[in-house]
Amino acid sequence: MAPDTTSIPGYTIFREGDYDSAAAAAVTPQGIPHPLDQLSITEIPVAAALFREYASPKQLKFNCITLREPRKQEYAAFKQGKAPRPDRRAFAIIIDRKTGQIAEAVANLTKSKVEEWKDVNDVMPTLTLEDLDILESLARKDSRVIKACKDIGITDMSKVYIDAWAIGIDERWGFERRLQQGLAYYRNSEFDNQYAHPLDFSIVADTEREEILSVDIRYVNGERTAMPVAEHNYLPQFIGDKYNHDRLKPIDITQPQGVSFQMKGNELSWAGYKMHIGFNYREGIVISDVRAHDPYEDRERTLFNRISVVEMVVPYGCPEKPHHKKHAFDVGEYGSGFMSNSLKLGCDCKGAIHYLDGVMALASGEAAVVKNAICIHEEDNGLLYKHTDFRDGTVISARDRKLIISQIITAANYDYGFYHIFSLDGTYKLELKLTGMLNTYPLHPTEQAAPYGTEVAPRITAHNHQHLFSLRIDPEVDGQNNSVVQNDAVASDYPVGSPENFYGNAFYSKKTPLRTSLEGAAEFCYETNRTWDIINPNSINPSSKKPVGFKIINTSCPPLLAKPGGVVHTRAAFARKPLWVLPYKDYELFPAGNYVCQSTGQENHPHNETILDWSNRNESIENTDIVCYLQFGLTHFPRTEDFPIMPAEPVSIMLRASNFFVKNPGLWVPPSSVCVDTMSRNAFSTSCCAGSKPGDSSRL
Amino acid sequence: MAPDTTSIPGYTIFREGDYDSAAAAAVTPQGIPHPLDQLSITEIPVAAALFREYASPKQLKFNCITLREPRKQEYAAFKQGKAPRPDRRAFAIIIDRKTGQIAEAVANLTKSKVEEWKDVNDVMPTLTLEDLDILESLARKDSRVIKACKDIGITDMSKVYIDAWAIGIDERWGFERRLQQGLAYYRNSEFDNQYAHPLDFSIVADTEREEILSVDIRYVNGERTAMPVAEHNYLPQFIGDKYNHDRLKPIDITQPQGVSFQMKGNELSWAGYKMHIGFNYREGIVISDVRAHDPYEDRERTLFNRISVVEMVVPYGCPEKPHHKKHAFDVGEYGSGFMSNSLKLGCDCKGAIHYLDGVMALASGEAAVVKNAICIHEEDNGLLYKHTDFRDGTVISARDRKLIISQIITAANYDYGFYHIFSLDGTYKLELKLTGMLNTYPLHPTEQAAPYGTEVAPRITAHNHQHLFSLRIDPEVDGQNNSVVQNDAVASDYPVGSPENFYGNAFYSKKTPLRTSLEGAAEFCYETNRTWDIINPNSINPSSKKPVGFKIINTSCPPLLAKPGGVVHTRAAFARKPLWVLPYKDYELFPAGNYVCQSTGQENHPHNETILDWSNRNESIENTDIVCYLQFGLTHFPRTEDFPIMPAEPVSIMLRASNFFVKNPGLWVPPSSVCVDTMSRNAFSTSCCAGSKPGDSSRL
Repeated sequence: MAPDTTSIPGYTIFREGDYDSAAAAAVTPQGIPHPLDQLSITEIPVAAALFREYASPKQLKFNCITLREPRKQEYAAFKQGKAPRPDRRAFAIIIDRKTGQIAEAVANLTKSKVEEWKDVNDVMPTLTLEDLDILESLARKDSRVIKACKDIGITDMSKVYIDAWAIGIDERWGFERRLQQGLAYYRNSEFDNQYAHPLDFSIVADTEREEILSVDIRYVNGERTAMPVAEHNYLPQFIGDKYNHDRLKPIDITQPQGVSFQMKGNELSWAGYKMHIGFNYREGIVISDVRAHDPYEDRERTLFNRISVVEMVVPYGCPEKPHHKKHAFDVGEYGSGFMSNSLKLGCDCKGAIHYLDGVMALASGEAAVVKNAICIHEEDNGLLYKHTDFRDGTVISARDRKLIISQIITAANYDYGFYHIFSLDGTYKLELKLTGMLNTYPLHPTEQAAPYGTEVAPRITAHNHQHLFSLRIDPEVDGQNNSVVQNDAVASDYPVGSPENFYGNAFYSKKTPLRTSLEGAAEFCYETNRTWDIINPNSINPSSKKPVGFKIINTSCPPLLAKPGGVVHTRAAFARKPLWVLPYKDYELFPAGNYVCQSTGQENHPHNETILDWSNRNESIENTDIVCYLQFGLTHFPRTEDFPIMPAEPVSIMLRASNFFVKNPGLWVPPSSVCVDTMSRNAFSTSCCAGSKPGDSSRL
Repeated sequence: MAPDTTSIPGYTIFREGDYDSAAAAAVTPQGIPHPLDQLSITEIPVAAALFREYASPKQLKFNCITLREPRKQEYAAFKQGKAPRPDRRAFAIIIDRKTGQIAEAVANLTKSKVEEWKDVNDVMPTLTLEDLDILESLARKDSRVIKACKDIGITDMSKVYIDAWAIGIDERWGFERRLQQGLAYYRNSEFDNQYAHPLDFSIVADTEREEILSVDIRYVNGERTAMPVAEHNYLPQFIGDKYNHDRLKPIDITQPQGVSFQMKGNELSWAGYKMHIGFNYREGIVISDVRAHDPYEDRERTLFNRISVVEMVVPYGCPEKPHHKKHAFDVGEYGSGFMSNSLKLGCDCKGAIHYLDGVMALASGEAAVVKNAICIHEEDNGLLYKHTDFRDGTVISARDRKLIISQIITAANYDYGFYHIFSLDGTYKLELKLTGMLNTYPLHPTEQAAPYGTEVAPRITAHNHQHLFSLRIDPEVDGQNNSVVQNDAVASDYPVGSPENFYGNAFYSKKTPLRTSLEGAAEFCYETNRTWDIINPNSINPSSKKPVGFKIINTSCPPLLAKPGGVVHTRAAFARKPLWVLPYKDYELFPAGNYVCQSTGQENHPHNETILDWSNRNESIENTDIVCYLQFGLTHFPRTEDFPIMPAEPVSIMLRASNFFVKNPGLWVPPSSVCVDTMSRNAFSTSCCAGSKPGDSSRL
């Protein structure tokens, strides 16, 4: 695709000469960037020019140009005032347009030079939206596709729609081709829901050569499968008079005094928390340098060095071809940043919203901005605490508050909301909301959907699948050196009737330190309510006399259902365990490999290690700088209620202060309500309630 | 305790002669009560008078007087217009003040006669707040208590506070005594937090004879344990200048057009849902007759006949005396109704709130009202659904809404919020929020808190415990006859490489019908993401061709950690399983028995059957009128952050429409945002967003 024709919905593209525009001015950074700020619209073309100059006369296609974060110790030294400001650097994955050779390169923007350039082999980089955009128009013109459509009665090719996907596996080609697959649908009219009209063939294409390699038609008993024709729509032009406008009265949420957080560039402070918000094409939101003010020790304490969602996999459970190829690794194969929604369009949160833009590079090396890619807002979170003294009716209650840093991505049919949530009780929670459209397929009259799918509408099946996410937490619990202890709730070993457990009620939390990266690849255990504490063994809570910690609470970590030895099980090794703990290493981020497209999951790949390789190094994870990968998600057996558009389904994982603070960390929060009956301890009273300043019953 | 001295914080008591008062007028029902309405302040004294007349000349102490709900078939026939309105009836548990004999009685209020009177033996009824109120004043005057205090340096008995609890077990007495135990604390000043000053003795008292039976001092190596003296407070008079008033700006939540639900008496309709809200001294909130309007079939469909929380247990895990006696069954031993907070005092929810009162009987037979015991309100619930078409940026999103019916109870130290939540996607969720105060105990200098507790502040231990709740669902999924099917997500049986599972990705939901009440006592299985569908085998979803159903999603169901053969394990048999399914029987409600105080858990007790007995009848639960008991909760290893007052900890369980509706049940909800780029399919646009009427970006 020639760069000058690029236009991607939601992207504002900045070309040479555009930099004077108002749009450019709005997103042009002021002053010196924070070392963790994403590359700006002015830095990206500078980096591209450096790479081009270095590689001249090669013709370069930029797969990504993104911030090369400073090494941890370099950044730490800078923060502590012990070292100069780190140079700004750009990292790029680059495809030689002529040879297809992939290279990784680093440019030092401060010093205007390319510092690293390394060719990498037997790997395929992320499929960008530009890459995926070619397939639909190619397919509509392809004679094999035209014939495949004609044979089931479709002649108007403008009504055929192709969702381009990464290819899970296709043994017919290897790394000599940069592959993508296309799933075919039909629309009766421009805004008709295509997922009600799935077609029975799929396509394989070469991304670089813009060439269709195969049109794979599925025959059932030698027959084609007719397209389901009934319409199942959800857009207003179709629902229209079926909306019920009178049932729900508006709920207005306002913040007349504004938000409670402050932004200094991309540094946020809120309710004693401080953090930096970054963004890149692959992980989307990156939250760094998370600290909390300890109200009892009156000092700032570090919590997490870096938080991001580094991978996910959606394995589908239907073994029939071509469905075996559906196992999307949305982060690694497409990029959570690339797929970001512009939230100005979505009106996705309520109250007073602060937005940040996402900046990415196009294949041309030009900068593109997703306006309002990141939403920052607050929500009321119900009770923070409450207690009533039953003797005299003395009541106190305070309200909790959430700070939510969110983005929403669209991965073809599916839409995912990512909500990073901090609350006043010392909890960090990542909530995912899954919505959008089911991936659908037509049923032949001789077929039934079960057991591998659900017939969500007549002759339309939606296959069983899982959504498994990998949250990477680089902890810094009260300092850099941390350990992880596994907690199992178990009954006392002593039998009922023994002096040590006469009544049989004794139970305790059995503690098992995870000492090596092999031990750090832990299993969940429901029977023992297993949790894990990220502790700092060097920082002891003066009350509990135990190391301070944050507890990982992960009760939504379904096992990977694909079988060992199978394709997904091998490619998605990260999803085999709910927890991996590893020693920290700079630039070791992506558990399914840096290159997920067409990956085989091969161990010890010279250019594409996975978390299995890292774990197998079997290094110490005790009292050292560690990093944790937390896998969570859900198994989805589609319901008719999920069609034609899915109600948002939440799933979450939580880390909670656990003997980190010496007391409830929310006691500084003014109560929303206090009732102290000071007149008479025992007199009956119902009228002593008063909201404390500045809140009242409808205010926090 | 003489009835004329009764005064209980939060209760408005109606005595003879009070009925003309404004307070009485405010809670006096208008018109004919709904058959499921709780007894009114005028019905309770009428019932008491009928019982007194019947039993004359006995002196009666009313343990409860509560609605005797009509039998299911009688009520169903009335609803269908096939039978007359059921008579109003009162059920009472009555103690003969002279002999202590317990009796169960039913009075027909419509016909003004007592219809049933049955003596019951070897059982003890609920301890009411009136019952529990005696202990503190008795203890302060008791010479043994005075000496126990004096020996650790406490001489001002007005500073000694006693929390009265049901007694888990005390072998020294049996059913000849109506027992309670007292846990002792100290306050430095009137509003000082007593849980920072636990004392090392406990008390056993006879409730009826108002007599202290024993003061049990715990000696450690022959020594008393000193009271921890440091103050740890949370009320404003102590925190005062440590509040940070500037950090959080108010969030205002308003509903300028009012709420979206309508109340007709205690019948509620909201967003297509209809239900009745009842209340009683024991279960607190009871939700009955839950129906939903099906937008596709345009008819009302039944969901649940009755929903309530029928039991809970809080077993503590420290085996040392006297802590083995701590395993509170708050619903059965104290009553969720009796312990209800008056929410006018608490300002516990935000927005436009509708309150209902709770009406109960005192020992005297007088009526008492907890004003605003039930809170009904709506909340925004984030995304209902969203989808973006990546081709042209067409976006639609709608917002979900919650209807929340809630109450908060105080069980001495602990406070529990119960939130029954309905949402627009066809989900019912019960969320519990646990807050209030940890039960604490002093540590002797030779002791450490571990492994059975946490030292939450110097020399104060809080013991490990569990909170296990029993939610009773009487389902009526599209009709009365339902079944339950167990779902296990499992990999295909076929090996990798076989034609049936070549790539190893195949998985499906294995279905196991639960056919008898023994099979209905099910275990959770994490490895298979086990869920259960309550289905109606007689009602088939036309798309999925499967029975319509509601899915039970319960991922927070920790096993009971007490050992088989031990006291708690025996008494709390209900908590051994996450699910029990039984055939419905009128008035079979309480899984730990109708009489939980001093219960032993004995099987086949003639007057006190438990769910174990019901299950052991091994009756059919297939395609019949069934009832489900869902156990869920959490295991709590206290943290220093839980002191001196606990941040609210949520835990929940969910039932979700699953192939019940033929499509997403929320498509009638007007979208909050639509963006359809009608000008050009491929033209770039960022400005096509428009809120649909009547919402805008800050309105739902």
